[in-house]
Amino acid sequence: MTRAEFIAGDWGTTHLRLYLCDRDGTPLETASGPGAATAAGQFTAIFASATAAWDAQYGKLPTVLCGMVGSTIGWIQAPYVPCPARLEDIAEGCTPIETPRIRIVPGLSCQNRLAAPDFLRGEETQLLGALNLFERLRQGQQLVCLPGTHTKWVTLNDGRVEDFLTAPTGELFAILRDHSVLARKPPAASAQHTGATDLEAIAFEKALTSVVQQPGTQILHRLFECRSRPLNHEFPAAAAAGYLSGLLIGSDVQGALRVLPKTSTPSPVVLIGDAQLTKLYATACAAFGLDTHQVAGPAASLAGLTEIYRRLS
Amino acid sequence: MTRAEFIAGDWGTTHLRLYLCDRDGTPLETASGPGAATAAGQFTAIFASATAAWDAQYGKLPTVLCGMVGSTIGWIQAPYVPCPARLEDIAEGCTPIETPRIRIVPGLSCQNRLAAPDFLRGEETQLLGALNLFERLRQGQQLVCLPGTHTKWVTLNDGRVEDFLTAPTGELFAILRDHSVLARKPPAASAQHTGATDLEAIAFEKALTSVVQQPGTQILHRLFECRSRPLNHEFPAAAAAGYLSGLLIGSDVQGALRVLPKTSTPSPVVLIGDAQLTKLYATACAAFGLDTHQVAGPAASLAGLTEIYRRLS
Repeated sequence: MTRAEFIAGDWGTTHLRLYLCDRDGTPLETASGPGAATAAGQFTAIFASATAAWDAQYGKLPTVLCGMVGSTIGWIQAPYVPCPARLEDIAEGCTPIETPRIRIVPGLSCQNRLAAPDFLRGEETQLLGALNLFERLRQGQQLVCLPGTHTKWVTLNDGRVEDFLTAPTGELFAILRDHSVLARKPPAASAQHTGATDLEAIAFEKALTSVVQQPGTQILHRLFECRSRPLNHEFPAAAAAGYLSGLLIGSDVQGALRVLPKTSTPSPVVLIGDAQLTKLYATACAAFGLDTHQVAGPAASLAGLTEIYRRLS
Repeated sequence: MTRAEFIAGDWGTTHLRLYLCDRDGTPLETASGPGAATAAGQFTAIFASATAAWDAQYGKLPTVLCGMVGSTIGWIQAPYVPCPARLEDIAEGCTPIETPRIRIVPGLSCQNRLAAPDFLRGEETQLLGALNLFERLRQGQQLVCLPGTHTKWVTLNDGRVEDFLTAPTGELFAILRDHSVLARKPPAASAQHTGATDLEAIAFEKALTSVVQQPGTQILHRLFECRSRPLNHEFPAAAAAGYLSGLLIGSDVQGALRVLPKTSTPSPVVLIGDAQLTKLYATACAAFGLDTHQVAGPAASLAGLTEIYRRLS
């Protein structure tokens, strides 16, 4: 029988996800709970409740938690580790609770390539996971992209996190779709909307192609096209969100490639995140001639948490 | 005694503003009413009610109306005049109601300099007004910027509207300030907020300077600074909206100057709009070495409506 050895957890803003793992990080069972945003003052109780059955069966297991649980709104503040950061720095930078049973993973800070301060939290664990999943990422200069509400573009150098750059691409998409006149769906369409429609997919490709053809253009001067092109009968208004998505992701990829270093090898860009989203980024990267490799976000998190557990135990 | 001769009106999405004017376009009295967004089916009644007192005193006067009143949500559709458009094209493109007493001013359409369809409505009248107020705008290639919810950058050539470019800069600012975690004010600050604070003004300048120093950077990759710089103690979180405004307006000016033709003369860029907003754009233009001349939006509208009345009477 496989023996449960530790608990790995991703405690983000909106959800707590826990995995009961064996020695190799294979998840045996899962548990969940409320996110850090609504957990103030209750972290200890929420965690105890979520793990009560495991405690009864296996005793209190060592635990590694990443995400907003370590932020100013979290259980305890796990300070940011400054870049360049090695794998060991992240594991060693963990902050203990109930010493040393529970460890909270730190975020990373850097001065980004636009000379601005930048921060991430949660993605450091997915990066660690990716370094474990892809041996080649440990050599030379490599590019990893973690698309999401706040997309992170990360430069690795011989396995160290050199620096990173944040683009709130997902957030911008959501608030423009929900609050702007530019890409709002007709009421009928939004009521039926359950995912990307064919029309949206075509509009996405159209936007992407036009971003490739107009290098260096500010996205500010292209957003109105979400409205003007339907008015000009180039695609239906119901597909405007697809066009918006293509403009945003295309501009994100194009702008990031302009700023980030050319990688020293022709290795694919590793994309970590939600499958639907990494697929859109893979399409956009391909439009700029870049190969990609997609990794599911939860798998990368779990691999990273397991690596941290191994290093700390 | 000055004699009332015509009625000039700007009937936008949210407001109707009417001016009783003498022969020279000097306003003698004003009236107001609800905007086009809530006037469906009631345009005739709203207009009759707003002008009843003037009708009683002067009879039914000739009237020129611009703005959304001529759009698909308006009183009657006044189709877009394609660019390049002359002054005469706009006056001749008016659509009559109660022939020929009331004239509705058409909008303009163009293929913009990013090869996309573009549209404006209401600004054509302000452009006509500016051409009347500034004789020099009628010669050579000139640049006019009308900042607002949807900022319009207009190229004039010997007094013709050659083309224009839309940037939803004001809309993006408003929805990011109201709905994003990037520039949301602390609750206390937002309750007191009645205008630009000193801290916001300083943050605006800081953002503007950094945009000048980072030419060609996608604004997508700078928006997170509204949050990361306060986290790095570079300015207080309450000033983040000022930094956001500087990033947006700076990127709008920089991106537009990259796309638009260099004007043939060193004439100032004419800025038409709300005084607070044209002042911010003037500051941004100055940072890029451009002189500007600011004109109040209502004054430009009235001058344009008067010019159309003169041409039609």
